[in-house]
Amino acid sequence: MKTILENLRNQNPLVHNMTNYVTVNDCANITLAVGGSPLMADDIGEVEDIVSISQALYLNVGTLNERTVASMIVAGQKANSLGTPVILDPVGAGASELRNKAIGRILETVDVAVVKGNVSELKALLSNHRHSGGVDALESDLVTENSLTESISYAKNASKLLGAIVVITGPIDIVADSQTAYAVYNGHPMMTKITGTGCMTGSLVSAACAANQDRLLESSAVAVSLMGLAGERAYEKVTRLNEGTGSFRRYLIDEVSQMTDALLKEGGRIEKF
Amino acid sequence: MKTILENLRNQNPLVHNMTNYVTVNDCANITLAVGGSPLMADDIGEVEDIVSISQALYLNVGTLNERTVASMIVAGQKANSLGTPVILDPVGAGASELRNKAIGRILETVDVAVVKGNVSELKALLSNHRHSGGVDALESDLVTENSLTESISYAKNASKLLGAIVVITGPIDIVADSQTAYAVYNGHPMMTKITGTGCMTGSLVSAACAANQDRLLESSAVAVSLMGLAGERAYEKVTRLNEGTGSFRRYLIDEVSQMTDALLKEGGRIEKF
Amino acid sequence: MKTILENLRNQNPLVHNMTNYVTVNDCANITLAVGGSPLMADDIGEVEDIVSISQALYLNVGTLNERTVASMIVAGQKANSLGTPVILDPVGAGASELRNKAIGRILETVDVAVVKGNVSELKALLSNHRHSGGVDALESDLVTENSLTESISYAKNASKLLGAIVVITGPIDIVADSQTAYAVYNGHPMMTKITGTGCMTGSLVSAACAANQDRLLESSAVAVSLMGLAGERAYEKVTRLNEGTGSFRRYLIDEVSQMTDALLKEGGRIEKF
Repeated sequence: MKTILENLRNQNPLVHNMTNYVTVNDCANITLAVGGSPLMADDIGEVEDIVSISQALYLNVGTLNERTVASMIVAGQKANSLGTPVILDPVGAGASELRNKAIGRILETVDVAVVKGNVSELKALLSNHRHSGGVDALESDLVTENSLTESISYAKNASKLLGAIVVITGPIDIVADSQTAYAVYNGHPMMTKITGTGCMTGSLVSAACAANQDRLLESSAVAVSLMGLAGERAYEKVTRLNEGTGSFRRYLIDEVSQMTDALLKEGGRIEKF
Repeated sequence: MKTILENLRNQNPLVHNMTNYVTVNDCANITLAVGGSPLMADDIGEVEDIVSISQALYLNVGTLNERTVASMIVAGQKANSLGTPVILDPVGAGASELRNKAIGRILETVDVAVVKGNVSELKALLSNHRHSGGVDALESDLVTENSLTESISYAKNASKLLGAIVVITGPIDIVADSQTAYAVYNGHPMMTKITGTGCMTGSLVSAACAANQDRLLESSAVAVSLMGLAGERAYEKVTRLNEGTGSFRRYLIDEVSQMTDALLKEGGRIEKF
Repeated sequence: MKTILENLRNQNPLVHNMTNYVTVNDCANITLAVGGSPLMADDIGEVEDIVSISQALYLNVGTLNERTVASMIVAGQKANSLGTPVILDPVGAGASELRNKAIGRILETVDVAVVKGNVSELKALLSNHRHSGGVDALESDLVTENSLTESISYAKNASKLLGAIVVITGPIDIVADSQTAYAVYNGHPMMTKITGTGCMTGSLVSAACAANQDRLLESSAVAVSLMGLAGERAYEKVTRLNEGTGSFRRYLIDEVSQMTDALLKEGGRIEKF
């Protein structure tokens, strides 16, 4: 069987990124670096056409507004009708009422295959759901406990509630469906010192899923591991050369574009639960 | 007579870029790197004022929406009334109905001096025209033939049909009006591995035209050659240092900012037909 | 007493940037580099929520449109009600009627703590005010005189008229309230050869003010000096390595992320008047 990365590089899938204007350029460049082809349309009049030629749809609500949320829903429903996987990044969930409502609307109207966010975003997203359902117990678990075992259990339950694969980014990333979870130990804190690493991770997950539609869980885990490993390697270089965050960002893209299965095998640290 | 690049560097022309939010930062930086001054306004209430102080107008429909297409038409008509050259980049022509219609509307209402796109975009744009005119023969020529001679003939005919200089980017770039064509042999495939090289080429063509309004055809050819040469040099450096696409992007801007007429003379590969 | 930079790095303040889509990524990255956390929401339905969790609000009208100007005013008024400092960057003031009106509307409806622009922008902004007040004498002073003494007097008067700290960027930057002015001698002309240095300076001023709300004047001066010093150091490196503007941009962010109080003390050139 081909690896996730091989399929990505061979198929060069089109990935429709509907994302924020802050990090959209980084998302496009990292999609190209990993082997995909980014498409960025967001007008409601054309997103169905663009989704129709794409192998995955990435919805990122970073700088959402009324116009783009409406477009995202139309695009998401079209993707659903075509069986094209939809990846949702609920950026800033919990930061505003509007944001919570928009994310809620997307989850209610679109069948999302993967939800990727940090713990706070996932918590906000699920507590929002609570008002019309309830995940109190899980939430309080996460707040009071901090161990890997608890987080994995939280992630599996979140996946069950959302009906989607859940990617929870953090010092250790968790990638889970309701049955299986992967803990990914790659990454480096310097990744939080540049904008867009979260968004770029979403683009990588989307590109990996686009080229491996029968292996969405594994694709998500590999994408997260690949991003983390690229971050580790970029950090190593920037430290050796005594450089700063501007250089780190450049090396991060470099490392993704130069990533190989051999490097992933050597440096990827994924554990299955 | 001063060279295209000398005029650009001496005049530091204002170039109004109405472009997409994915690569707009790259467009601004490459405009500055080559010697121009970018302006980026797109609100319909001010584009006429901004065009009035600019020496060229670049319309790029990458992430078009209803609001910006309307602004582009207003800006384009103002540019026409002032004799300011308009450069159109029909990004993604053929990818959606909306996109085809928007590009059609721009071409019908604005007198465009230069149309720059890849072969697929030009084909889509012309076949769209077909419905109200017809370029079937030309299209099928391009599909079945692949030689330089055919492409040059296609480009000259496309120029005649569009009433504009045509820049067709690809492994070999063709820059043509209805009488004369230039084949530009500069460039490197790695340019397709970062986002925005097409858009940046459009910005360079616009800046060159802004400073050389009596030599639009030659300006377009020199701009395309300059971009390709910068790409070759950036590739050389990135390969020598064993770096990736993040570094390539940085060197590309470096090379444009450091380009000289001596380098262009030595490395530029342009043939006239 | 802690330094401006120490407070910034320790407090990691949230800074709400409402800015243009050209340089927004640079603004986010430089905010992170200096020690702040950028937030970029602009939908009118959520800006009040976002301002409420932020320690400063940066309004930059670079690519203004009707939608975002309305959002800026709502956000600005919310910031005022919370005592959160508002920093305004009147990008391109004077370039269009719409722009002048929008800036006028913001100044009339929002209590701005700091206005940062280049001389032309400040002049345009004040002459616009003139129609409903008058600053003719000051304007003509600036046009006919060019000495530091005159500029400082102009800046202090501008501050009095605007009821805000004024940051006038240029070869020498002036930071002034109605009583006190700082001349900042840091910076390098290469900073004008990349897009966004003005916007990034605004983000740095905002981040510094966010973490030092009782020392807005000093914070603004330190932020401007820090940016200029980073530019000097980036220029030094790019020249030593014979690189261009793409590399300069990267080193600029590097230098901000690596800036220390020791470097600032050694290289910062600020004079009080």
